[in-house]
Amino acid sequence: MSKQLKYLLDEEHIPRSWYNIQADLPEPLPAILHPGTGEPIQPSDLAPLFPMALIEQEVSQERLVEIPEPVRDIYRHWRPSPLFRARRLEQALETPARIYYKYEGVSPVGSHKPNTAVAQAFYNREAGIERLSTETGAGQWGSALAYAGTIFGLAIEVYMVKVSFRQKPYRKAMMEAFGARCVASPSEETRAGRAVLEEHPDSTGSLGIAISEAVERAAEREDTNYALGSVLNHVLMHQSVIGMEAEQQMEMADDYPDIIVGCTGGGSNFAGIAFPFIGNKLRDGTGVRAIAVEPAACPTLTRGPYAYDFGDTAHLTPLVKMHTLGSTFVPPGFHAGGLRYHGMAPLVSHLQELQLIESRAYNQLECFEAGSIFARAEGILPAPEANHAVKGAIDEALRCKAEGQARSILFNLCGHGHFDMQAYIDYFDGKLSDEDHDASELAMALAGLPSVG
Amino acid sequence: MSKQLKYLLDEEHIPRSWYNIQADLPEPLPAILHPGTGEPIQPSDLAPLFPMALIEQEVSQERLVEIPEPVRDIYRHWRPSPLFRARRLEQALETPARIYYKYEGVSPVGSHKPNTAVAQAFYNREAGIERLSTETGAGQWGSALAYAGTIFGLAIEVYMVKVSFRQKPYRKAMMEAFGARCVASPSEETRAGRAVLEEHPDSTGSLGIAISEAVERAAEREDTNYALGSVLNHVLMHQSVIGMEAEQQMEMADDYPDIIVGCTGGGSNFAGIAFPFIGNKLRDGTGVRAIAVEPAACPTLTRGPYAYDFGDTAHLTPLVKMHTLGSTFVPPGFHAGGLRYHGMAPLVSHLQELQLIESRAYNQLECFEAGSIFARAEGILPAPEANHAVKGAIDEALRCKAEGQARSILFNLCGHGHFDMQAYIDYFDGKLSDEDHDASELAMALAGLPSVG
Repeated sequence: MSKQLKYLLDEEHIPRSWYNIQADLPEPLPAILHPGTGEPIQPSDLAPLFPMALIEQEVSQERLVEIPEPVRDIYRHWRPSPLFRARRLEQALETPARIYYKYEGVSPVGSHKPNTAVAQAFYNREAGIERLSTETGAGQWGSALAYAGTIFGLAIEVYMVKVSFRQKPYRKAMMEAFGARCVASPSEETRAGRAVLEEHPDSTGSLGIAISEAVERAAEREDTNYALGSVLNHVLMHQSVIGMEAEQQMEMADDYPDIIVGCTGGGSNFAGIAFPFIGNKLRDGTGVRAIAVEPAACPTLTRGPYAYDFGDTAHLTPLVKMHTLGSTFVPPGFHAGGLRYHGMAPLVSHLQELQLIESRAYNQLECFEAGSIFARAEGILPAPEANHAVKGAIDEALRCKAEGQARSILFNLCGHGHFDMQAYIDYFDGKLSDEDHDASELAMALAGLPSVG
Repeated sequence: MSKQLKYLLDEEHIPRSWYNIQADLPEPLPAILHPGTGEPIQPSDLAPLFPMALIEQEVSQERLVEIPEPVRDIYRHWRPSPLFRARRLEQALETPARIYYKYEGVSPVGSHKPNTAVAQAFYNREAGIERLSTETGAGQWGSALAYAGTIFGLAIEVYMVKVSFRQKPYRKAMMEAFGARCVASPSEETRAGRAVLEEHPDSTGSLGIAISEAVERAAEREDTNYALGSVLNHVLMHQSVIGMEAEQQMEMADDYPDIIVGCTGGGSNFAGIAFPFIGNKLRDGTGVRAIAVEPAACPTLTRGPYAYDFGDTAHLTPLVKMHTLGSTFVPPGFHAGGLRYHGMAPLVSHLQELQLIESRAYNQLECFEAGSIFARAEGILPAPEANHAVKGAIDEALRCKAEGQARSILFNLCGHGHFDMQAYIDYFDGKLSDEDHDASELAMALAGLPSVG
């Protein structure tokens, strides 16, 4: 039996194009609506926030969009990322399944986020922009944009959800090491932040609030644009390099995934690993099940209706159709800070409506347990977000065992947990619980959904 | 011009043997002496602490020692580690030098330490040992042995230097995630620890003290052996996989290093990258300069005499001839906890006497500055220990610039700084200073050197 654990590709195999699943959709995405008129927005409506190159990517129907060489040259620092066969995990689970994971923790900031951060910084620099403002949850995205800012000479301002800002001072330190400015959100720096603090002085923040702050700062300054780390079509497309590389690596392993698992906050890492394979299925019928795993405390895909909603709390963004818990929903302060978004990427939401993907929700304790099993078997301590994907993969592997089926499971290990050690300490010390969302707060947030679409 | 940044090898290129520089030495190592008799020790004298397989490696004169397949199978999880060409750093420095770095931060615990931890755990398990006790400075070694213990089913006890135990709670959490027990040293658990605490209740500890504690615990229990993370010949030999892989990767780059740089605490990562190349020089005269970089606050190679000394503070170990600051020397609590050892590997010390390597010392502020420059250029935040190697490489690159020489520089980036963010925060906040060692304490420690050899 082969003992090979790693499937490595050299730099020449970094994809030359991103994959855009919009080209293969059986039904197009619902339009993005202007919040004032309720009419479909025009590309020019987005121009105060984004460079035209990214706006074009947002609505592109091209299957392949060329990756600019300066972006590929930065990708070379960590891409192609390795694909691992989790042989020791398979043994620990005594499963006949073949488990593979794509490991994005090898990037400069330890997650998949630089795949789009570098691209966004490049296009903004090309458009003459000097500063980007953004939000961050656990800090993965903020540090990725900080890194990209250093590379392309852009100033970076990060509004970091307050609960994570407090839990993860080292993520802030990493952003600062890359030269970025990091502010706890809600802050006193914006109208949106001040409005929240007036009503809830102790607010621990949410991605929705932080987005409002970052959008407000970008909209009010000529030299500043806004950057989003997930949700939008162009962001998901930039992440397709994950799945496109994984396709080549599964071929090296002489295998093809029966099941693909990713965790979902805004949806980008799940889309990155799954969409290229779903594209194959759409074009030639190659069977694959794609499973999106989310936290039970923020159950967007599994509990949220598919409806038009705002991307942010202060309602500064356009209206997009997505699975949502309501833009004012604030999930409990659980440790997977990167999965605390009230909405879900329109593309991921749309695919669920088309029954092209499945979704499920897990509690945080069972995810930390899965992550600990994985760490002892494979030697990598996953980020709390990634533990959701680990848990999903382990459950599928155990189902294979129960059914005596030797299926092939591929999951995205989207980041390492080196900046999340306090969460592991709390878990080992028995201080974590399965905080659920507040049902009445969810009902209220859902009642506030705008009546359009 | 090629844009390639990474030189990757597949698992088949993991070396099948370790390289033992003792086979190529122009003069043999001075004997290890029994502390009671002053006579050369016998292998059996070491049997209470180490399995015979490792004792044989310690004194072996074979050039190549086969790596057991179960060890190679675990190496597959991260080895061969990547070799990078630091093109963006070269550009930032405007140097004609070609700078390469071997990156050991891809290992399960983020440093080179698992290379020997896995081997030591394997041989101890083979010998029927059930528990290993050890010391750790910054926690890199302790977490590496904790990982290896999980792999081979050994209980691990780690005595962690108190200053690092306090500075790095997350390293402790990682050890615990891998199932190890971690104790702040000096502790009340051992005679050696209690003796130090009686005299210095506020002692922040030292590697010498922690070694005494771990050795004492191993010596008093039948089922327990001791494991050391550096200094000893067999440890340095296990690290030779670094340099042996780098040789293959430099060949892929169609280059050969003129200069090799590594940081030195006990000496193992420097030996790992440099010894295979020094072996080439000894056998066929291929020119290479090897530079060992140490902290000015613990300047073993640059300021310590070459003399017989104990490896630990309580004088439980044999006497080895090495560059030493005296076994009672306690360096100031600077942040590169992995470089705080009072002595230096006998092999590294011997090579310096034979003028086969050079050494130099840097202050911590200039090392953090170098690490920050590196992080912004290459996207990897180095461990404070590794910053010493970065500083050495940058200085050599700037000398190339001044002299108009396009030399090839290879350094070992022995670990990432994800568990050292507080040190970076302190550095950015201007809270770090260039703490020097206490001259009178050094003089006293040197006056206490044993009068043998």
